[in-house]
Amino acid sequence: MNIFLSGYGKMGHMIQEFAVARGWSVIGHADIDCPENYETAPKADVCIDFSGVGAQKALAAYIRRTKTPLLSGTTGLTEPDFDVLRDLSKEVPIIWTANYSTGVAVLKKLLREYAPVLRDWDKEIVELHHNQKVDAPSGTAKQLLQAIDPDGTALVVHGREGMCGKRKENEIGVFSLRGGTVAGEHTVSFFGEDECLEFTHKAQSRRVFAAGAVRAAEALADKPAGFYTLEELIF
Amino acid sequence: MNIFLSGYGKMGHMIQEFAVARGWSVIGHADIDCPENYETAPKADVCIDFSGVGAQKALAAYIRRTKTPLLSGTTGLTEPDFDVLRDLSKEVPIIWTANYSTGVAVLKKLLREYAPVLRDWDKEIVELHHNQKVDAPSGTAKQLLQAIDPDGTALVVHGREGMCGKRKENEIGVFSLRGGTVAGEHTVSFFGEDECLEFTHKAQSRRVFAAGAVRAAEALADKPAGFYTLEELIF
Amino acid sequence: MNIFLSGYGKMGHMIQEFAVARGWSVIGHADIDCPENYETAPKADVCIDFSGVGAQKALAAYIRRTKTPLLSGTTGLTEPDFDVLRDLSKEVPIIWTANYSTGVAVLKKLLREYAPVLRDWDKEIVELHHNQKVDAPSGTAKQLLQAIDPDGTALVVHGREGMCGKRKENEIGVFSLRGGTVAGEHTVSFFGEDECLEFTHKAQSRRVFAAGAVRAAEALADKPAGFYTLEELIF
Amino acid sequence: MNIFLSGYGKMGHMIQEFAVARGWSVIGHADIDCPENYETAPKADVCIDFSGVGAQKALAAYIRRTKTPLLSGTTGLTEPDFDVLRDLSKEVPIIWTANYSTGVAVLKKLLREYAPVLRDWDKEIVELHHNQKVDAPSGTAKQLLQAIDPDGTALVVHGREGMCGKRKENEIGVFSLRGGTVAGEHTVSFFGEDECLEFTHKAQSRRVFAAGAVRAAEALADKPAGFYTLEELIF
Repeated sequence: MNIFLSGYGKMGHMIQEFAVARGWSVIGHADIDCPENYETAPKADVCIDFSGVGAQKALAAYIRRTKTPLLSGTTGLTEPDFDVLRDLSKEVPIIWTANYSTGVAVLKKLLREYAPVLRDWDKEIVELHHNQKVDAPSGTAKQLLQAIDPDGTALVVHGREGMCGKRKENEIGVFSLRGGTVAGEHTVSFFGEDECLEFTHKAQSRRVFAAGAVRAAEALADKPAGFYTLEELIF
Repeated sequence: MNIFLSGYGKMGHMIQEFAVARGWSVIGHADIDCPENYETAPKADVCIDFSGVGAQKALAAYIRRTKTPLLSGTTGLTEPDFDVLRDLSKEVPIIWTANYSTGVAVLKKLLREYAPVLRDWDKEIVELHHNQKVDAPSGTAKQLLQAIDPDGTALVVHGREGMCGKRKENEIGVFSLRGGTVAGEHTVSFFGEDECLEFTHKAQSRRVFAAGAVRAAEALADKPAGFYTLEELIF
Repeated sequence: MNIFLSGYGKMGHMIQEFAVARGWSVIGHADIDCPENYETAPKADVCIDFSGVGAQKALAAYIRRTKTPLLSGTTGLTEPDFDVLRDLSKEVPIIWTANYSTGVAVLKKLLREYAPVLRDWDKEIVELHHNQKVDAPSGTAKQLLQAIDPDGTALVVHGREGMCGKRKENEIGVFSLRGGTVAGEHTVSFFGEDECLEFTHKAQSRRVFAAGAVRAAEALADKPAGFYTLEELIF
Repeated sequence: MNIFLSGYGKMGHMIQEFAVARGWSVIGHADIDCPENYETAPKADVCIDFSGVGAQKALAAYIRRTKTPLLSGTTGLTEPDFDVLRDLSKEVPIIWTANYSTGVAVLKKLLREYAPVLRDWDKEIVELHHNQKVDAPSGTAKQLLQAIDPDGTALVVHGREGMCGKRKENEIGVFSLRGGTVAGEHTVSFFGEDECLEFTHKAQSRRVFAAGAVRAAEALADKPAGFYTLEELIF
C-alpha cells in the first residue's frame, strides 16, 4: 500500500514506522508548516491524518483533488470541520475517531449494547492522562459518554463540591485526572444496589493508537465512499 | 407469591427478609438439620434453595412430589447432582447459578459475546473473597472462565512460580485472593499490544445475591418446565 | 465501661451493638429530637457522638457539666463548632475525626510522612461514596488532602473541563464520585515520570467506622484533658 | 561523570541515552558476547551493570582491578553471586536491586515501616508483567514480600485451587499475572475487618528503571566502600 501522511510530528513518525514494518510505502507527507506539500502530492491508497486544526483546509483540497481515502485522528475539530469531512465522504471512504485502539472500539460497542440493560444503575466516567494534555474531558471520554447516553439526556457534571445534594438519577459524572506521563486510561463504572461493574481501558503508550490507525487504514482503503466508525471496520 | 425455603441459614434468612418486603409469604422451610420438613411441605409458587450438598436428595423428592419450580444457589454440587436437577427440569422450571447478582449475569453475557473479538489477547481472571471461604476458585470465577473459554480448550493455571517460561498463547490464569471480609470481587483482564481491557464486578455484601435470587424467583415461577440460566430470565 | 450515646440513628445503634458485645453498658442516649436527655444524663466513662450539627450546643453543655470524655464523628461542623470542642478539650479528653477506621488513620500518617519524598510527583485524590451523600468532597478526602498538602499551598481543583491548559505543578485534583450504595473508597495517586504510586482505602460497610470509634473510645477514656488525633490513640 | 556499561542490550542502550542527556561520557562497554572488553577497560566513575549471570565473573574481575563503584540490576543471581558482590563491597561502593524506580523504593520503605502496625490484617501481593517474562514471581515482588515479612515466617502460597480450606493467619498469597506488553505493576493489599488498604506501583515503561539507575549511580559514585540499598541513596 502507498500512504500519504498528513501531519508529520510524533504520531506521523510512529505511523510511518508501523507502515514500513508492514512493507508499505510512504509516498509523501505534509503538515501545517509545509502546507504546499498537500498541493503537489499524488493520489495514495490512503491518507493518514494526525495533523491539526490548521491543516484541515489544505488537507480537504488534497482529498477532493486526488480522491484518496482518508483516515483522521486530528482532535479539536469543530462542527464546521466535521461538515467538511461528511461532505468529502460522499466521494471517498472516511473514518474519524479520537481513539484508534481496538480496545476502546470494543468498549464503546459493548457499552452501547449493555448500558440500556443497566439503565437504573448510576454511571460515572473517569479518565486519566499525562500532565501536558490541555483539554478535558478527553475525546475518548466524550465518545464513551455518548455510548452510555446516546440521546444526550443525562445531566453531565465534571466535578462536585460543597453541599451539592444527593446524586440525581440522570446524573453522569465525567472526571478528568491529570498526572505524570500516563498515555491514557478510561473507566466507566455502573453502581447498583450493593454491587458495581467497572469497565477499564488502559493504553500503555501512544504506539497503540498508531498501530490501530494503520490497521484501520488497511480496512478503509477498499471500502466504498462513506463515513465509517472504527467499529464498522473492526467487527 | 408463596415461597418455600430450602436452607435456612444466613442466606435463607436474608431471602426471607427480601421476600417479605415484597409482600410474599414464606409457607415453610427445611434444612439439613430438619430434613423431615421436606416430606410434609405443600406445593409453593417457587422453592428457593441455598441449603447444601447434604440436602439435595430430600429437596429433589419434595420438588418431584409437589411440582414446585426450583431456584437453587447451592454450591459444591457434583455432576450427578446436576443430573438430578436436569432430570427434574423436565417437570418443573429450574434455575441454578453460583451467583444471582445482575451484574455478574451481565458480565458473563458480554464476555461470551466479546471474547471472540479479543481472541488474540491474553486473558487472566482474578477473584477476591473473605478469608473464611474454603474452596478456590469461586463458582463465579469458573463461570466467567467458561464464558471466555466456552470450548474448555485453554490451559488454565492457578499460580505461577519459578522458571515457568514465557506465557503460552492459550494459557488463562485464574487467581484466588483471600482476605478479610470481602463479599466478592471478580476481574477479567484482556491484555493486547500496548493496551488492556479490564472488566470488574464487585459485590458489597451478600445482600445482592439474596435480592437477585428473589427477583429471579419471580421470573421463574411463570415459566414452563426447563433448565434456565439467569441471563434468560433477566434479558 | 459506661457510655453515653449522643446521636441515636444508624451509627448510634451500631455503636451500641459493638459496645454491648464488649460488655459495656449504655447508660443513656440523646439526639436532636430529644435534646432534654442531654440535660439529665449522668457522667459516663465516655460519650460517643454521631449526632448532627443541631445537637452540638446541648452536647457541649452536657460535657461541660459532667466532665465526660468526648469522642465525636459528627460531620458538617464549622470553625466556631470546632472552637467549642477545642475549648472543652481543656477540661476533658476529646477526639474528633471524620473517619474512625484504622486503615484511614494509617493512610493519613504514611501520607504525611512520605508526601515530602514525592514532592515533585503530581498528586490527585479520588473518593467514591453512595448516591445519598449530600456533600463533597468527603471529610476523609479533606483530611487526606491535608496530609499531602499540610501548608495548604496547593491549588485544589474539583473538576476539569474545556481548554483548561496543562496541569500546573502545584495543582491537586480532588474528585468526588457518587453511585449506588458504596460505603466509602479513597485513593491518593502520585504520578511521576513513567511510574505512579496509588494508595487506596476501601470501607466495605459503615460497621468499620462504628468498630473503630468504640476502640478509640476505650483508648480515650484514660487520657488526660486534650484534643487528640486518632493516630495518637492508635500508634 | 565517566561511566562504563556492563551489559549493552536494551537496558544498556537506554542507560546510555539517559547518561548522555546528563552530559556524562560512556567510556566503554562490555557484555557476555564481548567479555574481553572487561579486561581492557579503564577505571570509570561508576560501572552500570544490566548484563546477565554469565558476565558476573568477568565483571567482578574488572571491578577488583579498577576499583570502580558498581551499580547492578542483573537478575537471576544466586547466593554465591551475591557473596562475590558483598566481598567486592569491602573495596568499592556497590548497590544491587531488582528495581531502580523511586516509586518501588518508597513502597518498600513504607511497607517495612507500616506492616507491623497492620500485623493482624491479611496480606496478598499481586504482580503483573508482559507475556515474555520467564520467571515468577518478579524480583520486585520478592522484595515487597520481604518488606512485609522480614523474618520470612509467613506461609507463602503462589496459587489456590480446590478445597484448600480457610485462609491461614500467617498465609501470604503472591500471584503472578502475565499478559500483553505490561512493563510492571505490583499491588500489596491488606485486608482487615470490613476495610482494606491497597498500595500499588505501576511502571509505564522500562525507561523508569534506566532513569532511576542513572540517578542512583550519581549518588553512589561519591560513597565510601559498602553495600548500599536504593533507599539509603534516595532518602
